[in-house]
Amino acid sequence: MTDDYAPHRSDELPPDSVGIVEPRTQHFSDSLTLACGRSLDEYDIVYETYGELNAAKSNAILICHALSGHHHAAGYHSADDKKPGWWEVCIGPGKPIDTNHFFVLSINNLGGCHGSTGPASINPATGKPWGPDFPALRCRDWVASQRRMMALFGIEQWAAVIGGSLGGMQAMRWALEHPDEVRHCIVIASAMRLTAQNIAFNEIARQAITSDPEFHGGRYLEHETIPKSGLALARMVGHVTYLSEDGMGEKFGREIKSGNFQIGQDDKVEFQVESYLRYQGDVFSRSFDANTYLLMTKALDYFDLAREYNDDPVEAFQHAKCGFLVMSFTSDWRFAPSRSREIVDALVAARKPVCYAEIEANFGHDAFLLPIERYLKTFSAYMLRVKEEVNRAL
Amino acid sequence: MTDDYAPHRSDELPPDSVGIVEPRTQHFSDSLTLACGRSLDEYDIVYETYGELNAAKSNAILICHALSGHHHAAGYHSADDKKPGWWEVCIGPGKPIDTNHFFVLSINNLGGCHGSTGPASINPATGKPWGPDFPALRCRDWVASQRRMMALFGIEQWAAVIGGSLGGMQAMRWALEHPDEVRHCIVIASAMRLTAQNIAFNEIARQAITSDPEFHGGRYLEHETIPKSGLALARMVGHVTYLSEDGMGEKFGREIKSGNFQIGQDDKVEFQVESYLRYQGDVFSRSFDANTYLLMTKALDYFDLAREYNDDPVEAFQHAKCGFLVMSFTSDWRFAPSRSREIVDALVAARKPVCYAEIEANFGHDAFLLPIERYLKTFSAYMLRVKEEVNRAL
Repeated sequence: MTDDYAPHRSDELPPDSVGIVEPRTQHFSDSLTLACGRSLDEYDIVYETYGELNAAKSNAILICHALSGHHHAAGYHSADDKKPGWWEVCIGPGKPIDTNHFFVLSINNLGGCHGSTGPASINPATGKPWGPDFPALRCRDWVASQRRMMALFGIEQWAAVIGGSLGGMQAMRWALEHPDEVRHCIVIASAMRLTAQNIAFNEIARQAITSDPEFHGGRYLEHETIPKSGLALARMVGHVTYLSEDGMGEKFGREIKSGNFQIGQDDKVEFQVESYLRYQGDVFSRSFDANTYLLMTKALDYFDLAREYNDDPVEAFQHAKCGFLVMSFTSDWRFAPSRSREIVDALVAARKPVCYAEIEANFGHDAFLLPIERYLKTFSAYMLRVKEEVNRAL
Repeated sequence: MTDDYAPHRSDELPPDSVGIVEPRTQHFSDSLTLACGRSLDEYDIVYETYGELNAAKSNAILICHALSGHHHAAGYHSADDKKPGWWEVCIGPGKPIDTNHFFVLSINNLGGCHGSTGPASINPATGKPWGPDFPALRCRDWVASQRRMMALFGIEQWAAVIGGSLGGMQAMRWALEHPDEVRHCIVIASAMRLTAQNIAFNEIARQAITSDPEFHGGRYLEHETIPKSGLALARMVGHVTYLSEDGMGEKFGREIKSGNFQIGQDDKVEFQVESYLRYQGDVFSRSFDANTYLLMTKALDYFDLAREYNDDPVEAFQHAKCGFLVMSFTSDWRFAPSRSREIVDALVAARKPVCYAEIEANFGHDAFLLPIERYLKTFSAYMLRVKEEVNRAL
């Protein structure tokens, strides 16, 4: 996830922002049975909402976040907050997910590390952090916990469930498992399942974390430490692979940060890209929980949309009743356009309504977080249709 | 570098192999001044030769190895040896580099860890391993030390200097710095300089090594340990990025090594690609020196063919007097065909004779080590021309 969104001037918030937002925490004391067979007796979900829920409760949008995402998708937490939520380009008044018309719910997924119950939370059975004992989670578990939030607001059907990357997997799972509760499913830079290469990169990230001596078998919090360098490495792998070669070339080229190429110099030259990566890794390692990273990458690896539908994506999508918008980005090589076209092909074969846009963009997988004109236009046009449907039904 | 070359039957060596070969060590006691300004007072070079040097000494080929390569490029070290040298597909009787006609010299580069003097060798000044005190090396230093080997054999001109990847960088450096001593330069899956993405992957590998607590600032041998998990991680990054997505997909798909996807299982499923990567990382970490890996990746990052020629590759190549064969592989994304085309474009603009072949192949950067039909045919055809030139001059 990029950190490059331009900070606003601290004396005023941008007019197309949802403005100051406040996260809230919802406690659930009904046990939730998980795909792994275990259950959580109680848990918290932290969430934010933007816009107003209409009286018919028909204008609700669910945002599903990706690997390193969280509930804070739009707006600012204070007037001094330097950075807005991670999807500020897409959520706000007049933006694709237009908060003048929609009510947006954005939650931190169960197992996360930004306020919802996860491996860094206290296990009530032991009084210690869950750590590696936190149950394995699947996309369907997130769908189940999101559905409880839905009930809380009295929403019977989402106007749209929207997600990029791992978030797109959750959106598709929603469409298959609760077809009557989803009007539109928007799947951005995602896939029906990971490739071997993608699993391999996730495994490298996990190995980096678990082979850090500070990992302590996942019980690092009990040892009052964190596997900082392992997590930083994991992030660096993610960062390089979520960007495109051209995007990195444009951003860094072979620019030198320090040193020079004079003969007589030992290895003193440092390229910009090296210090940038180390900085990104360092920042991430101090703000993200290592066990959450392991849990999220496993959920990614295990996701296989059609597994329970005879490995047939057409059979799988036959269960859906919603409209689909699928978008991909030309330079995204971890969730390549060919993966999105597989989704579209299966939807077409299942005779489902689908719009597909393959967006020319230079920034790899991270493109879904960036203000790319055709992306935002296409997204807005589709959402306008969703809004008109909502209005017609009123 | 792939480890998949089929082992021979132990009761006989393949007839198209150079057979049993023996590495030799050459000691140099004349000081070698390096690009970094420091010098090595004395050093060893381990090497192998295949085929016979003719009386005119005009049939000599120099092989330059890549990041994790070494002198053992062809043949077997004993009748029981399970695996041949790393370029067995290209070197041998009747193969592209035909040992019935050519004399082949293959050395382990200075700074290596397979017998030539490197960071794991004893520093005569301290009686301890060089470790991080070993001087930084550049491609030109390897060229200089290879040139001393050349003199030893009384060779005045190479019939060809040949290398893949980092080896191709050395071959190009030879062509520019010693134009009268190279008749042909064969550059395979290489580049005039690395992209930011490539530098980033190397930096991740280095961070994995140096952040391993067993690294001890590079003095791990003095601590009687090695940064095993860091080196394994570095290798895993290399392995994934040197393969193509399709190649990995073909080889592993989402095949499961253990566990199953039944509901009620925690994270027990292990994909084939995960255990394969861990195995490869483990093997490598026990056979390669971490400081050598750092040194070699730095030489890769710093290489910039045209830096001293006003950053103009055309001006650079104007110094060359040899013929060029450039080859690339369609699925190689770390040394992509576009990088090879840059070399070819510069050569054409410099009015140098160049043949270029872009080989359709599925195995990423590793393709240059594999028996791909069009690759071997093109390579053989060019080498036939080199042989005919040698014969005509006799």
